[in-house]
Amino acid sequence: MKIAVDRAILLKALAHVQSVVERRNTIPILANVLLDAKDGGLSLTATDMEIAVVEEVSGVTVTRPGRTTAPAATLYEIVRKLPESAKIELDHPGGEAPLVLRAGRFVTNMLALPVEDFPSMTEGKLPVRFALPAGTLRGLIDRTKFAISTEETRYYLNGIYIHVAEIEGTPVLRAAATDGHRLARVEEPAPEGSAGMQGVIIPRKTVNELRKLAEETQEDVEIRLSETKAQFKVGGVLLTSKLIDGTFPDYERVIPRANDKILRVDKKEFAEAVARVAAISSERSRPVKLSVDRNHLRLEASSADQGQAQEELDEGNVEYAFTPLEIGFQARYLADITEQIGEKVEFQFADGSSPTVVKDAAKPEALYVLMPMRV
Amino acid sequence: MKIAVDRAILLKALAHVQSVVERRNTIPILANVLLDAKDGGLSLTATDMEIAVVEEVSGVTVTRPGRTTAPAATLYEIVRKLPESAKIELDHPGGEAPLVLRAGRFVTNMLALPVEDFPSMTEGKLPVRFALPAGTLRGLIDRTKFAISTEETRYYLNGIYIHVAEIEGTPVLRAAATDGHRLARVEEPAPEGSAGMQGVIIPRKTVNELRKLAEETQEDVEIRLSETKAQFKVGGVLLTSKLIDGTFPDYERVIPRANDKILRVDKKEFAEAVARVAAISSERSRPVKLSVDRNHLRLEASSADQGQAQEELDEGNVEYAFTPLEIGFQARYLADITEQIGEKVEFQFADGSSPTVVKDAAKPEALYVLMPMRV
Repeated sequence: MKIAVDRAILLKALAHVQSVVERRNTIPILANVLLDAKDGGLSLTATDMEIAVVEEVSGVTVTRPGRTTAPAATLYEIVRKLPESAKIELDHPGGEAPLVLRAGRFVTNMLALPVEDFPSMTEGKLPVRFALPAGTLRGLIDRTKFAISTEETRYYLNGIYIHVAEIEGTPVLRAAATDGHRLARVEEPAPEGSAGMQGVIIPRKTVNELRKLAEETQEDVEIRLSETKAQFKVGGVLLTSKLIDGTFPDYERVIPRANDKILRVDKKEFAEAVARVAAISSERSRPVKLSVDRNHLRLEASSADQGQAQEELDEGNVEYAFTPLEIGFQARYLADITEQIGEKVEFQFADGSSPTVVKDAAKPEALYVLMPMRV
Repeated sequence: MKIAVDRAILLKALAHVQSVVERRNTIPILANVLLDAKDGGLSLTATDMEIAVVEEVSGVTVTRPGRTTAPAATLYEIVRKLPESAKIELDHPGGEAPLVLRAGRFVTNMLALPVEDFPSMTEGKLPVRFALPAGTLRGLIDRTKFAISTEETRYYLNGIYIHVAEIEGTPVLRAAATDGHRLARVEEPAPEGSAGMQGVIIPRKTVNELRKLAEETQEDVEIRLSETKAQFKVGGVLLTSKLIDGTFPDYERVIPRANDKILRVDKKEFAEAVARVAAISSERSRPVKLSVDRNHLRLEASSADQGQAQEELDEGNVEYAFTPLEIGFQARYLADITEQIGEKVEFQFADGSSPTVVKDAAKPEALYVLMPMRV
């Protein structure tokens, strides 16, 4: 292959694909990016055997089509360090010869591993097809991702569960994640083509890569699913991922339906007060105690070796008209949820020791469940 | 004690003092900041037993003078999280009672350890006294700090050596640091009061704290020294530090005096070319080979499993009129030095295997020595 391409174009594509490459992998070919120059342009592929990213690049002058591989991280570093306006030439004569990169008076010969060794992940049929606006996909991810479990033993919780449910005869697309201490569930109208799809668990790393890609576009993301794979087309990038092979628990059972004590509190004041009182303790799982009374909320935290902190919020910031209540939550969990909420946080309590529902008062499509801590 | 102070004032002072507190220390009192409210204002002290920082704060309303301690990191975190315009009240009734901090409807009771347990480091006479403009001090630190050794066994190299030398009858103040692979030496006119001072080794942590303080002022920094301690007065902050108890080697002996092959190269082009060719290897100690010929410089680096990279610089960027030469240096060392150089780097070579002198062609007061690597 022999091609010419502007630095900016190659850099952007390499940034996308090299981010799936595992830094500490033991299979040399997986540290490489596959470069495929055709008459139509250049495609770059990287994979860790769980995820594959293929990016089609236009704006490339292909003098001699061909395929080769190159060390992904090194190629990315070098291209990053070339001058902004650099014109890059990539030249691979074929066989076991190195890949030559020229830019001005800079030349590098990179060891190219055989193309035949590069694993393919894009095979197989993906019968379910639908599309989501990039903004909708970002919303599904942002409001559930933080609740993904990191416990490897509960591997079936290490991702976001996407499925279709029927609510009073209308199908909805749901994304859910839980780590056993909290649950996040977001609901959107089911897009055309999603009806009847099987639930799939998208692994965390795929979620993170997909979120980065979805940041850069306002267009629709095309989604294809099989029982074992998911594929996302975001602009010129095709992300293929294995699914987590497990059964996501029936999370609907843990969502309380009869919590009738409603607290509404301003998000900004609440989030800041949580951060302040929690600062008294450096333990990661520090609890914050909420004491709720008529239009009044007291937040409190303590630490055996630091002391105690409290803050009060009341009328103007707090609406509550039910029996007084005391309940504790992990400060970090409260912070994760309020970060996704706009103006007003709505808590739905049963009592001081039962799972609590949290919502954005203005956005009923997202729902969070928090397990209380003893305080 | 009982005082009132604006958040911004307390936050700035806490930022200074809490940064010397060791996060993982085992002596509880050292995690605390000493607060001393007098009629004139408030002073805050923190120490790790090697360094002590005392900051005098004005703009404080002292209702009841007194002294107490509080957990430094926690107090800093809480003050940081208060609203920007917050008015803070600190109230300590004395004895073993907690320190109460109030701000609006936020209250915290912080466990206060006994003032008597707080170690003092400010005792002792410091007979040598001189002053340096903050800008001069920043220059001395920036151009030597990177060469400080991190090898604990050569503890006498774990700091910057400051001493006075006489050059043709004129005393100069010198700062030097070396890790055995490279040496950095900066020279300034000796300030009044420094004549006859003994050489002192300022430990790395003190250097870092001092550099941060020197960032914030344009005024003179007052320096006082004894045989075991150094004290720096930067604005309202007094930094006291133990010195490294050891003998700094006679570094002048390793500075080559007869290197007569002079290479001058544009700093920007050189530094960028070093970064690019070095990107071929991910080893930290990767060498870059310089091949110098008449007004021509070739940089080259290679890696067994990645390949090879090279770049050429010539007339316009390179001046060299001596016999051709090949020599290798660690890329990181070249980067550290060129970062301190303005427009033009000057290399003074003896041959391809001897220590090389590097200078800023426009600033003769700083001198660097680099040991070559075999390439």
